[in-house]
Parts: sequence; C-alpha cells; structure tokens
Amino acid sequence: MDETTTLEKRWKTLEKNYIIQRPWLTVRCDKVELHNGTVIPDYYVIEYPTWVNTIAVTEDGKMIMIRQYRYALGVYKYELCAGTMDETDASPLETAQRELMEETGFGGGTWQEFMTLSPNPTSMNNLCHTFLATGVKKTGKQHLDDTEDLTCELLDSDTVYDLLQRGEIVQSLMAAPLWKYFKDRK
Amino acid sequence: MDETTTLEKRWKTLEKNYIIQRPWLTVRCDKVELHNGTVIPDYYVIEYPTWVNTIAVTEDGKMIMIRQYRYALGVYKYELCAGTMDETDASPLETAQRELMEETGFGGGTWQEFMTLSPNPTSMNNLCHTFLATGVKKTGKQHLDDTEDLTCELLDSDTVYDLLQRGEIVQSLMAAPLWKYFKDRK
Repeated sequence: MDETTTLEKRWKTLEKNYIIQRPWLTVRCDKVELHNGTVIPDYYVIEYPTWVNTIAVTEDGKMIMIRQYRYALGVYKYELCAGTMDETDASPLETAQRELMEETGFGGGTWQEFMTLSPNPTSMNNLCHTFLATGVKKTGKQHLDDTEDLTCELLDSDTVYDLLQRGEIVQSLMAAPLWKYFKDRK
Repeated sequence: MDETTTLEKRWKTLEKNYIIQRPWLTVRCDKVELHNGTVIPDYYVIEYPTWVNTIAVTEDGKMIMIRQYRYALGVYKYELCAGTMDETDASPLETAQRELMEETGFGGGTWQEFMTLSPNPTSMNNLCHTFLATGVKKTGKQHLDDTEDLTCELLDSDTVYDLLQRGEIVQSLMAAPLWKYFKDRK
C-alpha cells in the first residue's frame, strides 16, 4: 500500500464542525467529498487520544489480566491492562508502562511494540498500540482512582487461551493481539 | 464467567440522557453509580446497531477483500466485507449475506458464525459478528450506492496473511477474526 494510492483515493474535507467538545467526548460533523465526487453533508468523526494495551507476562510465565465491568455493553470480562495516552506521556510505551504500574503494581521486564490497530478507521481518528512485556515483576503498588473499579489476576497462558477461544475476551483491540500472540507461540 | 458475577459487579444507571440522536450517531450521557459506590455524573455511551463482517473464501480458495478509503483515520486499506444490520434484516447472518452480495456480487457457499466481538464495551453498546463463508461464487452483480467508494479484490490466503502480519489490515474487528482464522489453519 503506497502513500500515493492513499493520496489518490482520499476524500476532501469541505467543512469541519465540532458538535461536542467535552472532557471525555469530542465529535465532529464534517462535510466531505468522496473520491467519486459524491458529497456527504454530515459525516461524523469521533476524536480520541492514542490508546494502548499490554500483553504482560511475569517472570514465571503468568499473564496479567484485568477484570472489570464495562458499562456500555453491560459485561464483566477479562481484559488486557489498557489506557489512554496523557499529554504528559512522552510516548505510547511510557503510557503502557505507567498504566501497568498503576493498575497492577508490575513493572520492569523487556518491552516491545507488538501491534498497532485502529479501533475503527471509519468513525474514529485514533490508533491503539499493543505492547508485549515479558519478565515483568511486582515492583510497586496498585494505584487506582475512584472510577477504576477493577481487579488484577495472574493467569496461566492456557487459561487465557481458553478464555479467548470461548469468546470471553470480547474487546476487539485485545482479542486481535492475543490471537496473534498465540498464533506466534503455539 | 457466570451471570451472577456480572450482576454483582454491574453499575447502576441513575440517569439516562440522549444528547445526540441523528441518523448516523446516537450518544447518551448517563449518570452512573459504580459497584464501589462512586458516582460518575457524565458517562458517555455511543449507541450503534449490530455490525457484521465476513471472511469469504471462494470455491477456488481466494479470499474476498474490500479496499476503501476510511475518512476518520485517513487511510486506504484492505478490509473484510462488512456492514450494519438493518431493521429489515432477520438476523446478523442475513445482514452479512446481503452485504457480501451488494458489495461483491458473491453468494452461496457454506456459512458459519465464526466470532463475536465488542468494538468497545466501555463506550459502545453493540456487538460485531464475524461469519466464515466458504465456497462462495459470483452469482450476482455488485450494487453500490453513491457513498460506497470501494473495490473488491480476490487475494490468495498467503497474500492476506502477509498483509495481516505487516499490519496492513488495521481495523481491529477484522484483524482479530483473521488472526484466529490463520491460527486455526496454519
């Protein structure tokens, strides 16, 4: 996929109007012209910061999973440790390391960028970076704020693979890197 | 994950207010009480219909991929054939079969539900169903409306796997089932 093709195919922004700008939600309604000349007068784009999540494996091979209730879908499921990049974070990696420490108290180990995905390139402007952290250890204490209602569990990789196969890891930005992880390993 | 645990952990909706109700965007701002008693006065939920996508494989083993420009992220990438459930669709399967016919002209074959994911259980209330359709054939004609600016390509599975490995299939709801598909096969 070369850059030229993308430029050739891109749609033009004719107007850009912010209709919601609140701390947790920013929505634009753009007027856009497609490559084929069609004009869409009301194309909605939801703006988000960069997101991260981490496949974190401890020194003794346990995978660090988070369990929490997710209100919009009304489910209580296993997830990867995840978060949103703050303005004070120097990089997505720093965000991922900060979130793992805050939510679980684990740090150290070896970190690598594992996968980059789009939550939804049609309607959302951000990317989500997944990191693979191996050999992490408990070096601090969990620090949750009042709105973080979650628990941290250390699971065998077979247990995580079983959850994945049974569709219990339902968030697509976590299921995708976990399937890649187990494809690479098994 | 039993239902009792989910009920125990669920948050209470104290207020439910629709702040945007437009044809392509519905947003609520709820007042919610967490399991730990904390109250969040402004929790945003974006409501969407059920989504579907399909891993479609032709009689001679080619994978049907869609290439289109995605405005919010500004990328032109390969995707699975995908769509949104209409009120007139009897089931997600019917939606998937209708979308494949409309976008590619392919139909028939054997269909199975392959995976169900959440685009984002934190902020979105819908699910996305992936189907695996094998042995499909060209039985009709592509019918695109003016806002569908896309092309359909038949690729070898090795080519799709290469795109996936290189991060060219960037939409998480498609990357996850494709990683599972290749995990199962290779």
